[in-house]
Amino acid sequence: MGKELLGKPVRELIRSKIRERIEKGQKIRGYILVNPNSFEAESYAKLVASLLRTFGQEVFLKEVRNLSEGEKVLKEAKQDALSSVFLARPLLFKEESLLTEEIPPEKDADMLTGTNFGKLAKGDLRYLSGTSRAVKELLDFYQIDVGSKKALVVGRSVSVGLPIALLLLKKNAYVTTVHSKTDIRDIREEAKRSDVIVLASGKRGLIRKEDLSPSSLLIDCGYQEDGGGDLGFVPEENVYTPVPGGVGPVTVSALIENAFFLKYGD
Amino acid sequence: MGKELLGKPVRELIRSKIRERIEKGQKIRGYILVNPNSFEAESYAKLVASLLRTFGQEVFLKEVRNLSEGEKVLKEAKQDALSSVFLARPLLFKEESLLTEEIPPEKDADMLTGTNFGKLAKGDLRYLSGTSRAVKELLDFYQIDVGSKKALVVGRSVSVGLPIALLLLKKNAYVTTVHSKTDIRDIREEAKRSDVIVLASGKRGLIRKEDLSPSSLLIDCGYQEDGGGDLGFVPEENVYTPVPGGVGPVTVSALIENAFFLKYGD
Repeated sequence: MGKELLGKPVRELIRSKIRERIEKGQKIRGYILVNPNSFEAESYAKLVASLLRTFGQEVFLKEVRNLSEGEKVLKEAKQDALSSVFLARPLLFKEESLLTEEIPPEKDADMLTGTNFGKLAKGDLRYLSGTSRAVKELLDFYQIDVGSKKALVVGRSVSVGLPIALLLLKKNAYVTTVHSKTDIRDIREEAKRSDVIVLASGKRGLIRKEDLSPSSLLIDCGYQEDGGGDLGFVPEENVYTPVPGGVGPVTVSALIENAFFLKYGD
Repeated sequence: MGKELLGKPVRELIRSKIRERIEKGQKIRGYILVNPNSFEAESYAKLVASLLRTFGQEVFLKEVRNLSEGEKVLKEAKQDALSSVFLARPLLFKEESLLTEEIPPEKDADMLTGTNFGKLAKGDLRYLSGTSRAVKELLDFYQIDVGSKKALVVGRSVSVGLPIALLLLKKNAYVTTVHSKTDIRDIREEAKRSDVIVLASGKRGLIRKEDLSPSSLLIDCGYQEDGGGDLGFVPEENVYTPVPGGVGPVTVSALIENAFFLKYGD
């Protein structure tokens, strides 16, 4: 069996930073926008709500089924100086990206607005999204240097794949991004040659045991309905983040620290 | 000899769009910020100034040697509703990126602000920088489909390498970005396997004749002191953009159309 990189100690480190902030008197009110028809989003919303409450922060769980319901909640949040907005995605309506842009950047815990994404793109790693920041925290905690390494990111979403590619570039890896329009043979060929592989497409089966070099590091950002990740098997020799227990536990804590950072700075 | 993709007809197409805008009554005033100690920046400033004047638009060439001089000019530009700002880079002072962020996004012809870069990152190709937009216009004009192809971008700058990588991803290529911290052997190995190679590092000699597959498309965004590009040789079999005459002629026109687009929309 390969060597697991566990998320729990990393999560605890972030939580202790959040506690320090709260002890200093910092406070947020979480406005969580969720479409009750989205199973995936609902579990995310519950995790965020529960962790915010654990930290003694107020939570408003808001059901939004369309753009105008979403805008109504955002209007409310804008009037509350302590509010931070958490979008439980997918919102399942087509104007989701329009709604995203209406979030004031200083309340945009998911770092989904163009303004915050632009800061990341220009190299400021404090603007990583929840999942991409979880990857950064795992690399930092386990002191993994990706400099000069060949990294493969499977997936090009604005919330996961792209920010992770930018993170790895900033950390001096050279980075290949593949996606749904890439031939599966090309994905596997790239995987064979990569030192770091990040799974961030939400699809299982793209990369098989035989596509891995034993020395490559595997970071699995997936979360499938059966509770497993995008990889879907336990690698025999690689260092890897398990699902559950790897990236996932770090993500929600990272997200909440993002909210505090945007409101109160470092 | 390979087949040249010439910039001139592409440039003419963009210029005709600019003329259409002007005939509709659209007007800009170009504030060009340039450090007179920077040879590279000065030639850029002259090209922008000259083309703006050709189109009958007013130009203010402003010498800036430090942040406070830059801020003074930006203050002036902000008070002018018709102004568009062109930063002739490098500005040669370390607060260059601070100054960039003070440009109002709707006056940011170079698309250097986080706000505009974020829009690009989220997939809106109307927010490409001058050089990256030149690459897009060349691909579109010569009807080159990069979908599913392996693309290599040499360079990760916010003004050239990164936006080109985002452009190619959006066009469904799968994209590898290499840079100054990538081992030269890895860069050459990636080049050998790539269908599209974009040179955007400002360094010559990274990729040699023997590193090219005869079928790969070469896009050279470089401009060296001797007037040649980053490639530095004429490829024997490849389709390629020559320097001078390829990307360069398109860039300044693209930049000026950017300025009109930001102020007046499509």
